[in-house]
Amino acid sequence: MTNTTWLDEVQWGADGLVPAIAQEAGSGTVLMMAWMNREALALTAREGRAIYWSRSRAKLWRKGEESGHVQIIKDIHLDCDNDVVLLSVEQQGGIACHTGRHNCFFKQLRDDAWVSVDPVLKDPQQIYR
Amino acid sequence: MTNTTWLDEVQWGADGLVPAIAQEAGSGTVLMMAWMNREALALTAREGRAIYWSRSRAKLWRKGEESGHVQIIKDIHLDCDNDVVLLSVEQQGGIACHTGRHNCFFKQLRDDAWVSVDPVLKDPQQIYR
Repeated sequence: MTNTTWLDEVQWGADGLVPAIAQEAGSGTVLMMAWMNREALALTAREGRAIYWSRSRAKLWRKGEESGHVQIIKDIHLDCDNDVVLLSVEQQGGIACHTGRHNCFFKQLRDDAWVSVDPVLKDPQQIYR
Repeated sequence: MTNTTWLDEVQWGADGLVPAIAQEAGSGTVLMMAWMNREALALTAREGRAIYWSRSRAKLWRKGEESGHVQIIKDIHLDCDNDVVLLSVEQQGGIACHTGRHNCFFKQLRDDAWVSVDPVLKDPQQIYR
């Protein structure tokens, strides 16, 4: 039987979720932030791929299940308050964002405006068919 | 009068907050994740230092106000869903975590256990007097 004490140590929020930050191994680029419940984190560790909880769809979200843009887990870290998870991942396909960009943080604040500064690498219509 | 349309574009949560990830410029290390309300983000941009909303103390938290470990803002990014902020910062004192470590994600999952893998650089009792 698997020892799941480590899951009990996580301080799950009132909604049963914690933020999970995905950082690209090697480059250090912060790819995205999503949410995990206990099952998502357990499966992420067991299967070695990022599995989040989709709040909008209210179900487990196996990152890359449609797009093929799976995130392979290299490491899992927890913060000092036990309420934020940091994943070190290998981003398959080089695209983490549903907009077809490498990462989700492509809007930069410049002179009181958000400006898109990163290129779309692949048309989302070609990613999700 | 300052144009604050960019603040309206942020998708604040039901509690008026969004997660804010602080990443160290240069090294790419993810230092911490905290929360911001509208005022915190506005002040962060205006003053050029990270100002969060402390959920436990229910007030603005000028990072470094006690410790001196101020985070100087290099860049502010927003994600595709407009609900997560990524700060690129210069970490003064080289310590982001209240435990006296460089960053808050010092617990690594190893064989079903969280293991502290980063050193304490400064005794917290010497940081907060």
